[in-house]
Amino acid sequence: MEVEIATIGGYEEVGRQMTAVRAGDDVVVFDMGLNLSKVLIHDNVETERMHSLDLIDMGAIPDDRVMSDIEGDVQAIVPTHGHLDHIGAISKLAHRYDAPIVATPFTIELVKQQIQSEEKFGVKNDLIKMDAGETMSIGDSSNVDLEFVNVTHSIIDAINPVVHTPEGAVVYGLDKRMDHTPVIGDPIDMERFREIGREGEGVLCYIEDCTNAGKKGRTPSESVARRHLEDVMTSIEDYDGGIVATTFSSHVARVKSLVEFAREIGRQPVLLGRSMEKYSGTAERLGFVDFLDDVGMYGHRKSVDRTFKRIMNEGKEKYLPVVTGHQGEPRAMLTRMGRGETPYELDQGDKVLFSARVIPEPTNEGQRYQSEQLLRMQGARIYDDIHVSGHLNQEGHYAMLDALQPQHVIPAHQDMKGFAPYVGLCKSEGYQLGRDLHVTSNGNTIQLTE
Amino acid sequence: MEVEIATIGGYEEVGRQMTAVRAGDDVVVFDMGLNLSKVLIHDNVETERMHSLDLIDMGAIPDDRVMSDIEGDVQAIVPTHGHLDHIGAISKLAHRYDAPIVATPFTIELVKQQIQSEEKFGVKNDLIKMDAGETMSIGDSSNVDLEFVNVTHSIIDAINPVVHTPEGAVVYGLDKRMDHTPVIGDPIDMERFREIGREGEGVLCYIEDCTNAGKKGRTPSESVARRHLEDVMTSIEDYDGGIVATTFSSHVARVKSLVEFAREIGRQPVLLGRSMEKYSGTAERLGFVDFLDDVGMYGHRKSVDRTFKRIMNEGKEKYLPVVTGHQGEPRAMLTRMGRGETPYELDQGDKVLFSARVIPEPTNEGQRYQSEQLLRMQGARIYDDIHVSGHLNQEGHYAMLDALQPQHVIPAHQDMKGFAPYVGLCKSEGYQLGRDLHVTSNGNTIQLTE
Amino acid sequence: MEVEIATIGGYEEVGRQMTAVRAGDDVVVFDMGLNLSKVLIHDNVETERMHSLDLIDMGAIPDDRVMSDIEGDVQAIVPTHGHLDHIGAISKLAHRYDAPIVATPFTIELVKQQIQSEEKFGVKNDLIKMDAGETMSIGDSSNVDLEFVNVTHSIIDAINPVVHTPEGAVVYGLDKRMDHTPVIGDPIDMERFREIGREGEGVLCYIEDCTNAGKKGRTPSESVARRHLEDVMTSIEDYDGGIVATTFSSHVARVKSLVEFAREIGRQPVLLGRSMEKYSGTAERLGFVDFLDDVGMYGHRKSVDRTFKRIMNEGKEKYLPVVTGHQGEPRAMLTRMGRGETPYELDQGDKVLFSARVIPEPTNEGQRYQSEQLLRMQGARIYDDIHVSGHLNQEGHYAMLDALQPQHVIPAHQDMKGFAPYVGLCKSEGYQLGRDLHVTSNGNTIQLTE
Amino acid sequence: MEVEIATIGGYEEVGRQMTAVRAGDDVVVFDMGLNLSKVLIHDNVETERMHSLDLIDMGAIPDDRVMSDIEGDVQAIVPTHGHLDHIGAISKLAHRYDAPIVATPFTIELVKQQIQSEEKFGVKNDLIKMDAGETMSIGDSSNVDLEFVNVTHSIIDAINPVVHTPEGAVVYGLDKRMDHTPVIGDPIDMERFREIGREGEGVLCYIEDCTNAGKKGRTPSESVARRHLEDVMTSIEDYDGGIVATTFSSHVARVKSLVEFAREIGRQPVLLGRSMEKYSGTAERLGFVDFLDDVGMYGHRKSVDRTFKRIMNEGKEKYLPVVTGHQGEPRAMLTRMGRGETPYELDQGDKVLFSARVIPEPTNEGQRYQSEQLLRMQGARIYDDIHVSGHLNQEGHYAMLDALQPQHVIPAHQDMKGFAPYVGLCKSEGYQLGRDLHVTSNGNTIQLTE
Repeated sequence: MEVEIATIGGYEEVGRQMTAVRAGDDVVVFDMGLNLSKVLIHDNVETERMHSLDLIDMGAIPDDRVMSDIEGDVQAIVPTHGHLDHIGAISKLAHRYDAPIVATPFTIELVKQQIQSEEKFGVKNDLIKMDAGETMSIGDSSNVDLEFVNVTHSIIDAINPVVHTPEGAVVYGLDKRMDHTPVIGDPIDMERFREIGREGEGVLCYIEDCTNAGKKGRTPSESVARRHLEDVMTSIEDYDGGIVATTFSSHVARVKSLVEFAREIGRQPVLLGRSMEKYSGTAERLGFVDFLDDVGMYGHRKSVDRTFKRIMNEGKEKYLPVVTGHQGEPRAMLTRMGRGETPYELDQGDKVLFSARVIPEPTNEGQRYQSEQLLRMQGARIYDDIHVSGHLNQEGHYAMLDALQPQHVIPAHQDMKGFAPYVGLCKSEGYQLGRDLHVTSNGNTIQLTE
Repeated sequence: MEVEIATIGGYEEVGRQMTAVRAGDDVVVFDMGLNLSKVLIHDNVETERMHSLDLIDMGAIPDDRVMSDIEGDVQAIVPTHGHLDHIGAISKLAHRYDAPIVATPFTIELVKQQIQSEEKFGVKNDLIKMDAGETMSIGDSSNVDLEFVNVTHSIIDAINPVVHTPEGAVVYGLDKRMDHTPVIGDPIDMERFREIGREGEGVLCYIEDCTNAGKKGRTPSESVARRHLEDVMTSIEDYDGGIVATTFSSHVARVKSLVEFAREIGRQPVLLGRSMEKYSGTAERLGFVDFLDDVGMYGHRKSVDRTFKRIMNEGKEKYLPVVTGHQGEPRAMLTRMGRGETPYELDQGDKVLFSARVIPEPTNEGQRYQSEQLLRMQGARIYDDIHVSGHLNQEGHYAMLDALQPQHVIPAHQDMKGFAPYVGLCKSEGYQLGRDLHVTSNGNTIQLTE
Repeated sequence: MEVEIATIGGYEEVGRQMTAVRAGDDVVVFDMGLNLSKVLIHDNVETERMHSLDLIDMGAIPDDRVMSDIEGDVQAIVPTHGHLDHIGAISKLAHRYDAPIVATPFTIELVKQQIQSEEKFGVKNDLIKMDAGETMSIGDSSNVDLEFVNVTHSIIDAINPVVHTPEGAVVYGLDKRMDHTPVIGDPIDMERFREIGREGEGVLCYIEDCTNAGKKGRTPSESVARRHLEDVMTSIEDYDGGIVATTFSSHVARVKSLVEFAREIGRQPVLLGRSMEKYSGTAERLGFVDFLDDVGMYGHRKSVDRTFKRIMNEGKEKYLPVVTGHQGEPRAMLTRMGRGETPYELDQGDKVLFSARVIPEPTNEGQRYQSEQLLRMQGARIYDDIHVSGHLNQEGHYAMLDALQPQHVIPAHQDMKGFAPYVGLCKSEGYQLGRDLHVTSNGNTIQLTE
Repeated sequence: MEVEIATIGGYEEVGRQMTAVRAGDDVVVFDMGLNLSKVLIHDNVETERMHSLDLIDMGAIPDDRVMSDIEGDVQAIVPTHGHLDHIGAISKLAHRYDAPIVATPFTIELVKQQIQSEEKFGVKNDLIKMDAGETMSIGDSSNVDLEFVNVTHSIIDAINPVVHTPEGAVVYGLDKRMDHTPVIGDPIDMERFREIGREGEGVLCYIEDCTNAGKKGRTPSESVARRHLEDVMTSIEDYDGGIVATTFSSHVARVKSLVEFAREIGRQPVLLGRSMEKYSGTAERLGFVDFLDDVGMYGHRKSVDRTFKRIMNEGKEKYLPVVTGHQGEPRAMLTRMGRGETPYELDQGDKVLFSARVIPEPTNEGQRYQSEQLLRMQGARIYDDIHVSGHLNQEGHYAMLDALQPQHVIPAHQDMKGFAPYVGLCKSEGYQLGRDLHVTSNGNTIQLTE
C-alpha cells in the first residue's frame, strides 16, 4: 500500500499546523491550525470575517492547496488538542472536505465553539468524539485504523493520533510532555507507544514536535510547577493586600492549582476574561475539574468590571483574581489593570504572579516588559516564570525514538533552525538525512512506501 | 555609644567577605573570606603556602589593614557559614587578632579543617561553638551582645549574626534564602527577625546580600529543587546504564536528596571527590544527616579509582556516583571522567545530572561547556539546572526590610552594579542614598552613631 | 566661596537631565530634559497641554522642587545641545526662573521651536546665543564665568559648559564623543580641556556622562560611520528599485552623509517626516549644511504623501527617501511604509538602511523587530547598525580625567547600574567613593567647598 | 554527462571542509580542512604525528572514505585559500590520491609548509600554481575545465574554483566577502561570476558558505576596518607608553594596515609569534606586501624574547608589537604577556588592540575573557572588535544568486542551524527544498545530472 505524508503547515513556523497521511486511497488530516502572530502583526484584522485565501496569503492558516495533488479521499480531520495553532483554521478549511472531525471530548467542544463564532463559512462536518485509548476504522478498506494514544501537554485531553496501515503505523507526535505525574488526567501512555513500536510492522513514520529539541534533559512534570506555585503562594499567605495571578487560560491544570492554592491561603478564586471563562467553563461542564459552585468565572466586560468592584468593596485580601494577559497582550485584562482601566486598584506591595513564561520573540518580550512596567508603576511586585513547558526536551525525544523505533522520522512544529537540534539528535541514533530522516517544508509530500 | 561599620571586603566583588562592627570599644568581625577566582586565574598558585600580603595584593583575601584605623578591640571573629568566600581567609588573617572564632558547630568544623591544612601561619584562636538562637556577651561592657538567628542557605547550619548595642541592633544579613520548608534543619526564623525589628531601639543597621537583588519574585524553597530532582530521577528509574550526578559538595541538603532518590530508584549512592567526602562526612559526624552505613564516601584519588573499578565490575546500573565538577572545573572528577581519565567508562545514553547552575561568568561558562562537550563525546546525555539559588530574590529583600525596619541599610556581597537593583528597591521603600542607604567600597568605614 | 551641586534629574535614568551649580549666590542650571519613555508608555498623552506637576509625577521631567533648598539666584539656564532629554522640559520649567536661556545658536533655535509649540505655559525667558569658545560673566560678582567648550556629539553645535569659580572650574561633561575628524564642525577642543585642568585652581568638579562607561576602547569617529555608509551605498549603486534610509532626524551630520552619498549613486535625496524637516531645515537655515536647492524636505502628512506619489510616478530608482522610524516607532514614517499606509510601494528586493542602532530596551526592540517584519513582508531587505555612538567609551573617560584632573567626580546620565563601570574606572585612577567620587540620586545636593 | 557532488566534510560544522565534484569520470576535490576545535579540546594532542584514521574518529579531518563510492579518478585537489579549515588535512589525506594540488601561489606556499611539518605521512603530490582568472583542463576528456575566479576574503590570494562541464558550471563559493575596495589585491570579480551565470549552460550547481547567512545587510569592506583602525591608532598617537596589537596572523591585509598606521604614529612595527612570521613572511617573499627592510618578524621563542628585551631597553613608546593571541588562546603570545611570562612589561594605561572578533563559542569566550582579565590586572586597557568579517552577509548571498542563477544550490560551511537562514533566503528566491535546494550532511552524495 502506498503511504504518503503531506507536510502542509507548521513546517516553517510554530503555528498553522496541518499534516495529511495518505494510506492507499484514504487520507487522514492531522490538525488545521492558526498562526496567530501573522494576524496580530496587522492592526484591526478580524479573522472571523476573512476568507481563507486571504488568510493563506497572510501566512495565517495552512495553504492546503497541495491537497489537490493527493490522490485519495479525506476520511477524517483529527485535531490533536484544543490549542489554536492546531484547531484555529478548522472553521476556514474543514468545510472543503467531506469528512468528520474526530477528536477527544474537550477538543471537540472547543472546535464546536470555534465553528459557532465563524462568520464567513458554514462548517457542517460531523463532530465525532473519541477518547484516548480508542480506535476507529478509516475508509472502507478495513485495514486502516485510527488510534488515539493518551499524552500529557499544557492543555487537557491531548492525544497523539496513530494511523495503522499494513505498512506499519504512522504516529503523529506533536505537542506533548512526558508527564508521569500530571495534575489532571492520566500519565502519558508510554506502554502503548512501546507496544506500537513492536507490534505488526512496527512504526513506519514518526512526526515529531521539535519545540524544545535544543533543550537539555527532561521537561519537568506539571506537578513540579504545582509545587513551585505552592511555595510561592504559601509564602504570601499573610499578605493582606491584592494578589493577582495570570496563566494560559487554556492551561486548565494550572488554573486548577491556582484555584486550590487560593483556597489554601484563604482567598476566593475568580477567573476573569473571556478565554478564562471559555476553557475552564468547558472543562468544568465536561467533568475534568470540579471548581465547586463558588468559583466565579466571568468573561464579559461588564460582569468582569462588576466583579472587580465587588472585590474592591469587600476587600482585595479576600480574593485571587486569575486573569488573562500573561504575555503582556495590549488588550488583555492584566495589561488593562496595569493601565488603571479596570475598577481593581493596585497598591504598593500587591503581588502579580505570572504562572507562564514569555514566549521568546521580541514582540512578546516588548509587550510583556511594558505590561510589567505599568504594573510596577502602580506599586505591584512581579513573580514570574512559575511554569514548566508543555513540550518534550531532548531526553523525551530519545525516549520516544527508543519506544517507537520508527523507520522514518519527520521533524515538525518549527522552522529549519528549530529542526536542527532534533536532526542532530536523530543522527546520533543512526538516522540519516535524506534516507530516513526528512527535513521538509510547508507544501511538500514525502512518499514512504510504494 | 559610637557604632561604626568597616566594610573591609566583598563590597566590590562576590568573595573575600569581611565586615567589622565597632560598638564602643568592642569590635566584632563578620566573615574572613576568599575570592577563589583571583587565585584560579593564575597557574599553579598554592594558597596554603602563601603569605597574606601577597594574597591581599592578588585581591584574593580581604585587605584588613583598614582595621588599624578602628579604635577598639576585636572580641570575636564570626564566620556566618562554611562557604569559602566567608571562611577561606581565616587561616591567613585570624591569627593577627586576639579573639576567638565563634560559629555554629558545622561551620566551626570546617574552619578547624581549614586551619589544619594551612602551611604558612599557625592559627591559635579559640574556636567557640554557638547554636542558632543563642546569645553571648561581647567584651566587658555587658551591654553588647552577639546573637545567632537561624537562616536557610545552600549550606547547613547557616546563621545571621546580630550585634545588640544600646543604639540598636546591627544585623549582618549575608547569604540566605527565605525557606519555610528546607530539606535539612529548621525554617528561617522570621519571627525572631520581626522581634528584633521591634524590641528596644530596633535595628540600627542592616547589611544585606545583594546577589539576587535583580531577580523578580521569590527564591524557591530547597524542597522545590528536591521535587524537581525527584521528577528527573524517577523518570530514569528503568535505565540500565550509568547515571552520574554532580552538585556543590558543600550543599549537604542536595546531596541528601541525591542519596535518597538514588535508593528510591534502586541504586547505591557513592560520594566521590575530596570535597564531597569532607562536607558530607563532617555533616554525618555532626548528626545533620544519617547516610546509613552503606553510603560510600571516597576522597583520595586511589580510593576513588578503586571505587570506580568496583562499579565497572559490578555494573554501572547498580550505582549513582555523586561527584565534584558541576562548574566544569578542569581538575574536578566529572571533567576527568569526560576526558576518560578515570576507570568509569561512559556509554552512549548514560545520564549526567548537573544539580547546579553555571555561575554566570565567561570562564566558568567556557569550562562548563567544554566539560559537557567532553562528556557528550563519550556518549553522555546532560540534565542541567536542577537547582534553586541560596540567595534572596527581591521579595525576600522586601520581607527582610519589613521585618527589621532598619534605620540604615548597607548593600553588600556584590560590586556596585550588583548593588544597583537593591538600591532601587530600598529607594522604593523610602531610603535615600547618602542619608540612610550607604553604597560603599572595600576599605571604607561608616559611622552610624556618635 | 561655597560651591554646591544639585543633581536634580538624570541621575536615576537616561532622560530628564537637570543639574544646578551654585557658586556663592549665583546658580547656573544645566539642561532641563524630558524622559520620553515615561510619556510614551501611556496611551494618548499629549505633553504640550500637561502641567509640569503631572509630568513630574510621571517621572517625565525633572522634579525641580529641590531648587527651593538652594540659596542663590538662577542666573542662567544652559542646555548643552538640542536633544529632547536635555531641552524637552524647558517649556515646562524655565518660566519659574528669572534667568535667560543661554545656548549655542542651533540649540537656541530648537529651544525656540519647542517653546512655540507649548500650549500650557508661556515661557518668556530671554534666549541668548553663545558660541563654543566664548565666555560670559555670571551674576554681579565678576568672579564667576560661564564658558562653552566645543565638543562632538550626535547632534551639531554641542558644547560642554564650564562654570569658572574662585574655587576652580565646574565642568559639565554630558553627551560627547571624542571625535577628531567629525563630519560637520570642529573637532572636540581637547586642548582647551587640558588648559582648564591646569589653569588657576584647576577643576573642582567634573560631571560625566556614563552612557558607554562599560564599553571598551574608543567610540569611533563619525567619519568611520560615514565610511561604512559609503561602503553600503556604493555597493547598491546599480540597484534599480527602491532604497530608503532612516536615521536619527537630529543627527544632521549623518543626514548630510546620506544626502551626499545619495547624489554619488545618482539618486535624489528627500527628507520626509516632521522631525526630519525640523532639524535639517534648521541646520540649513543656520548654515551648518548646504543641501543645495534641490533637497526636498517635507514634514506635513499631505506633502509627504504627495512626494511619495511623485516618487512612484517618476521611478523609485531616482530617489533616496530619508525618513523617520529608526527605532520602529509605531507612528513613524518607516513603520507606516511597512504597513502599506503610504503611497510608496515596496517591492521584492528593495533596500532599507537603518543608519542607527536599536536603543537596547525591550519596548524598542519589540517595536523595531515588528517594523522590520512588516517591511520584510513587503519584500524589503534590511541593512542595520550603520552607526557609531555619540557617547564616550572607556578610553574617552580616561582621557577626560587625564585632561581635567578634577578634584571631584560625579557620574551622571544613567542609573546606578550604569554608573558602576565608571565608578570602577575612577577608582583605578585613585578616586574614592564618598571622598571625591560621588554616587548620587535625583534630588540630592553635594557641597564641594565651604 | 553525470555530475555528482560528494559533501564530505564541513557540512555539519565549520572546519574540515571537503567537497568532491565528479563530472563523468573526472573528479575534482575542493579543500581538505582541519577542525581545530576537535583537536584542542583534548590535552596534549600533536596532530603532526597522528594517523588520519584517528583524526577522522576525533572529527578533526574529513572522513573521506565516502570517496571509494565515487566512480571516477581524482584529477585535482584544489584548496581555495590558505586557512587551516581548508588546507589543514592535506598532509593527512592528499597522499591517498594520485592527483596534483592546484592552488594560487600564496595558498601553494602554505600547503608546502604544512606538508613539510608533517611527521607521519610523506605527501608527494605535485603542487601546481594557478592564478585567479586562469583555467586548466581536467582529465583527458577535453570538455571539463577548472577555472579560478578572484574573490576577497580575510586572507590574500583567495579564489572560488569553478568546474566547467557540458552540463553547466559547478561553482564552489566558500569563504568570501564582496569587497570592492580591498586593502590588498583586486576586488571580487563579480563581472566574471555574472558571465559564468549566463554563458553556455549556465550554472548547474552553486555551493555556498553560510557562515553569516543570518546577518542582515552587507559585510563591510576591509577598507572600513582599516578606517576604523586608523581612527583608533591616530587617537593614541601621543601616548608615550606601550601599545600592543593582535589580529589573525593569516590576515595579511590587516597586518599591513597595522604596520602602516604604526609608522604613521611614529612607532616601529614588529611581528611576533611563529604564525605571524609564517604568514607575513610568506606574503612578503611572494610580493603581496612590501614591509621594507625594517619590519622585524620573529617566530622563535628566543628571538621573540630578545626582541621584547630590546623594546624594553629602547623604550616601549618606540614600538608596536603585533602578536598572536586574539582569541585568548592559552599559549599564545598575548596571553603569555598577560601572565607576565615575557620580558615585555605592561604598565598602567598601556593599550592592547584586538583587531579581531571573538569567535562566538563558550570556550573561546572564556579564554578571551581570561586573557583580557590578566592583561587588565597588569594595567592594560583593551580596544576590541576593530574588525570586519570575511564572510558574506545576506545581501552578498542575494547578489551571488542573482549573478550565477544556479539550477541547484547546496548550503555549506555550517551545521543545519547555520544553514537555516540561507535556506530561508533561497526559498524567498524560488528554490525549493528537496528539488533544487539540497540540505545535506557529511558523507552524502547528490547526483545532479544523469
